[in-house]
Amino acid sequence: MASTGNTGAPLTPAIIFDMMQAHHRTAALKAAVDLDIFRAIGDGPGDVATIARSCKASERGTRILCDFLVINGVLSKADGHTPLSATFLDPRSPACLASIAQFLGNSALHEPDQHLADIVRNGRTSLPGAGTVEPENPVWVQFAQTMAPMMAPLAAPLGQAVLAGQSGPMKVLDIAAGHGLFGIEIAKQNPHAHVTGLDWAPVLRVALENAKKAGVSDRYNMLPGSAFEVDFGGPYDAVLLTNFLHHFDVPTNVTLLKKVRAALKPGGKAATLEFVPNDDRVSPPMPAAFALTMLTTTEAGDAYTFAELSSMYKEAGFSDMTGHPIPMSPHTVVLGRA
Amino acid sequence: MASTGNTGAPLTPAIIFDMMQAHHRTAALKAAVDLDIFRAIGDGPGDVATIARSCKASERGTRILCDFLVINGVLSKADGHTPLSATFLDPRSPACLASIAQFLGNSALHEPDQHLADIVRNGRTSLPGAGTVEPENPVWVQFAQTMAPMMAPLAAPLGQAVLAGQSGPMKVLDIAAGHGLFGIEIAKQNPHAHVTGLDWAPVLRVALENAKKAGVSDRYNMLPGSAFEVDFGGPYDAVLLTNFLHHFDVPTNVTLLKKVRAALKPGGKAATLEFVPNDDRVSPPMPAAFALTMLTTTEAGDAYTFAELSSMYKEAGFSDMTGHPIPMSPHTVVLGRA
Repeated sequence: MASTGNTGAPLTPAIIFDMMQAHHRTAALKAAVDLDIFRAIGDGPGDVATIARSCKASERGTRILCDFLVINGVLSKADGHTPLSATFLDPRSPACLASIAQFLGNSALHEPDQHLADIVRNGRTSLPGAGTVEPENPVWVQFAQTMAPMMAPLAAPLGQAVLAGQSGPMKVLDIAAGHGLFGIEIAKQNPHAHVTGLDWAPVLRVALENAKKAGVSDRYNMLPGSAFEVDFGGPYDAVLLTNFLHHFDVPTNVTLLKKVRAALKPGGKAATLEFVPNDDRVSPPMPAAFALTMLTTTEAGDAYTFAELSSMYKEAGFSDMTGHPIPMSPHTVVLGRA
Repeated sequence: MASTGNTGAPLTPAIIFDMMQAHHRTAALKAAVDLDIFRAIGDGPGDVATIARSCKASERGTRILCDFLVINGVLSKADGHTPLSATFLDPRSPACLASIAQFLGNSALHEPDQHLADIVRNGRTSLPGAGTVEPENPVWVQFAQTMAPMMAPLAAPLGQAVLAGQSGPMKVLDIAAGHGLFGIEIAKQNPHAHVTGLDWAPVLRVALENAKKAGVSDRYNMLPGSAFEVDFGGPYDAVLLTNFLHHFDVPTNVTLLKKVRAALKPGGKAATLEFVPNDDRVSPPMPAAFALTMLTTTEAGDAYTFAELSSMYKEAGFSDMTGHPIPMSPHTVVLGRA
């Protein structure tokens, strides 16, 4: 029997079989959210018949789906909820982020998986045009509406990194604002900050709703349009550029960063939030694996290393680049000074 | 910061994010097989430019795909192949089973994933009719053609369990023969055995090819048709029923097992090969998770426990049921005596 070099454990094709079945995991988690299984489990007592009745689902389907979630560490056979599902998937938890299953499980974004060999051949998404960053792509309204709970825990550390104690009047531009949470956080941390959110108009309506909920809408302006076309106005003390650069190639990003720098006051800061892998591009796993999402859904995007982001900033005229990994998350804030 | 009860490790939603992206793993492995990446890596030297040229693919796509396979433990950044990929994915390895990506990655079988919430509601596949076991479903030709390398290592232990040293003249029926490897193995282990393969006619052509390659086609007969409709003939010393019962509900299986028993000589053996989870239905992970595949693709199939299979055998008139887990595999042989 062959054995692995490292461990002496017998070599089996289990990993291969597991990977070929991995697609079920995404489907199972999304289905459980759609069926409201995690609420039913929180209601107790957690037997299959009760969950099935509560979710208006068959007992066969409910049993097999719940067992599958136990196998994957999401639910517990003995207790129903695990700490993970109670905290992040039960809609009664303030930290619930189940809505991310709508964007991350969007079948339009999975469809390129069926053509991945062709995508690798051609080096670009199989989606038409510019893929997910095609103008007015409705997927960004869904992103703004459903991904906020995943981004919310990142807002405070991002705000602290950008403000670094700055408390006086300031103007901030939030490019690709989406849900708006990052700009809103600046307005919350600094009551003298005025924030301008830039995104497609239907997306900005979501951001404005969130600004109202946060009580900062009187200091929240909207700048609808494309980051590449609209006049930024300014000058700004800070520009946020979150979850955006990974969609584009280096020259496009440098062009955009030059435009950002021109809209900043001297000494002003640009702040990107990104999946930033190490130079080996295979660690840590989550930021590194994100490159495949950019391969399948964009023309030329990537998960850029700190060295690459730093180099783009530098070419655009920025200095003093620093990286701030956000604890307990796969994200890093990269700052540059105009 | 919340922490998990068991380990004291901080609680993060990483597992949830990982599951929502898991669909990429299936796509990545299938694309790498389709592009012949594992052959190119075996050829060396394993740099991205060489692999891309060899696979007629873009460097961007090749780099991101190969890095993704490193992240998932399939390839090695330093060495190209891992023992896993060299053994099971490089087409020059005698143990290569890369072809299973065609059946396990068949988009027609993944399509129900998009409707999993409805499947759980309704308790049955979203595929038309009886799902994958609809008469003459072409997917079984693909199964026979591509899954043989995964099944081949199971054939010898299955043959030993069934024969248990029996060496004289005997007649064996192989129901749902597929690639035919299990019946062929009986013919190889016992040169006096005559084997009849039963499956849809286009599938049996694959089995006959394999019987010719194994040099046993003179003792291999074909019985084309449905296991539920065709006259089995007999009487047989043994009947193989591999990867079959999981597609159907208990009453259907009992009916079939009665028909099997009626075709066996007194004291003859029925042998099923199945994914058999423990009574908790959530362990071991691979056999237990297989239930979800049956939920998505069949009307009423399941991954049955030994107790359930044993009870079906008993109701059909069998006795002396025994389970024989096949080492290094997720499969178990269950024997019953007529």
